[in-house]
Amino acid sequence: MRILIVGGAGMLGSKLAERLAQEGVLGASAISQLSLVDVAPPVPPPDAGFDVVTRVADISEGGLAQDALSARPDVIFHLAAVVSGEAEADFDKGYRVNLDGTRRLLDAIREAGGGYRPRVVFASSIAVFGPPFPEAIGDDHAAAPLTSYGTQKAIAELLLADYTRRGFLDGIAIRLPTICVRPGTPNRAASGFFSGIIREPLSGREAVLPVSEDVRHWFASPRSAVGFLVHAATLDAGALRDLRPLNMPGLSATVAEQIAALREVGGEEAVALIRREPDETIVRIVESWPRNFDARRAHELGFRAETSFAEIIRVYLEDEPAR
Amino acid sequence: MRILIVGGAGMLGSKLAERLAQEGVLGASAISQLSLVDVAPPVPPPDAGFDVVTRVADISEGGLAQDALSARPDVIFHLAAVVSGEAEADFDKGYRVNLDGTRRLLDAIREAGGGYRPRVVFASSIAVFGPPFPEAIGDDHAAAPLTSYGTQKAIAELLLADYTRRGFLDGIAIRLPTICVRPGTPNRAASGFFSGIIREPLSGREAVLPVSEDVRHWFASPRSAVGFLVHAATLDAGALRDLRPLNMPGLSATVAEQIAALREVGGEEAVALIRREPDETIVRIVESWPRNFDARRAHELGFRAETSFAEIIRVYLEDEPAR
Repeated sequence: MRILIVGGAGMLGSKLAERLAQEGVLGASAISQLSLVDVAPPVPPPDAGFDVVTRVADISEGGLAQDALSARPDVIFHLAAVVSGEAEADFDKGYRVNLDGTRRLLDAIREAGGGYRPRVVFASSIAVFGPPFPEAIGDDHAAAPLTSYGTQKAIAELLLADYTRRGFLDGIAIRLPTICVRPGTPNRAASGFFSGIIREPLSGREAVLPVSEDVRHWFASPRSAVGFLVHAATLDAGALRDLRPLNMPGLSATVAEQIAALREVGGEEAVALIRREPDETIVRIVESWPRNFDARRAHELGFRAETSFAEIIRVYLEDEPAR
Repeated sequence: MRILIVGGAGMLGSKLAERLAQEGVLGASAISQLSLVDVAPPVPPPDAGFDVVTRVADISEGGLAQDALSARPDVIFHLAAVVSGEAEADFDKGYRVNLDGTRRLLDAIREAGGGYRPRVVFASSIAVFGPPFPEAIGDDHAAAPLTSYGTQKAIAELLLADYTRRGFLDGIAIRLPTICVRPGTPNRAASGFFSGIIREPLSGREAVLPVSEDVRHWFASPRSAVGFLVHAATLDAGALRDLRPLNMPGLSATVAEQIAALREVGGEEAVALIRREPDETIVRIVESWPRNFDARRAHELGFRAETSFAEIIRVYLEDEPAR
């Protein structure tokens, strides 16, 4: 089995590549080749027992999507995106990469010919949803994004579903929860504090909490997110029917519940490193974010996430020993 | 007030132009210019008390969208589309006109500069919805189209909402019910029989009914559809907030109810002209179409449609005296 990861240098792309290298198989099929494409140089996973190809390319530029498809990968993970903040700050770049780049990739698959019809797993986002929200957002809830990023993800989902219905490919769009605990250094994303208030105190560093403790949000660990991608790649398409975007499972937790879990795992000294510094801009942004989902359909299809925030923290400690 | 109708030669576009010519105003504003653009030559409405400009152009071709905007219309009705059957038969043409053409138009508005921010009324469709359906489809129900046409309409709605949120224009997408009774000659559209079984018998001609009488669908007259467009053009944007696609009101009726109304208006001899000739292909297509809506939000915003099928037939007889 040949696999292509578009966005293979990102946090999720690298973790996915590492897992594929460790397991050597995807579902029941032995992996023969893994191709990693990104605008930043992808790092091959250590100890892969199969051929690994890396390529620096921008899928929004003509021809490169075709190049990436030359090996006719059986499974394509499309994780490449201009992130939310950048897509909001740079209107043209967001549409060029997130919409046109995705369409170019799908069109290159469509035009490959010869009965080529790969499974395409697209990393979508809960950012496709905007208020007003029901108590729990179901798969039949309308996408009404409040960011250009969310708009581009929602459009890509529609394209993926139509190209699938037309028989050009076999797509599935998984709407990822906010990934927590993100490893690495603090970034300027509005959602950064959800990871920061756990990651930084566990390393003995101070973290800023810009919102109140009753803020509720929807989380899954990086390990779960990689699990979603792998499961989506091997899922029986018959069960999906024509409904190709799927809300992924996750954990609905308040900041207070996050802090209680931090206390449980890291003790009172960790909690003491959280500094409350309200930021009205962040408060306003976070107010428009989804808080809870009904991911029944994904559960029935076998997707699994953490069920407590303490579990999310333990996964972080296990998976990031060198933090 | 200057008005542009993109798709000004179509059935709805011409009827809209005629109404604007009759009334001379849109809302409280006197109309100074009406511009009609279409791939087919638009016919200026009779007796317009204002300047009428017609132009043959394809909005999916570069530059033409800019030309159409040179008069800086205050209101733009975007009705141009490759219809459902053609968009399904010709994948590239559907995406080129319905998606790229719409995006080119929206981008031309965005790039016009100088604080230009027109009201853009986009004719969307209930084709954005696909099964499984709730008892009545609300505005918060997910778009899950089962045609490329519905996909392109859903994508255009998302673009319109994002461009509106960004402040480039002031958009509203109205999801039109199936328009009934369509004037003119029978066409090959799968939905054609809904109009045909009324229009043809009322003119003493036979009509074919390819589905069973318990089939339920969602209707409004051409007069109501023009009313929706006019109302959408003059509606206070504040009431719309960030939710720019709107399910239009309509009438949920079965074929049996259509026939009962035909009997009421046209008598038994009209009903006798309906010939039952089941067509499995049409039965299967129609099964995937919406049957009923909860158009509460549109009602609250002042949109109105017919409340009985007999009323829809009477509107047809009044508006098409030369049928």
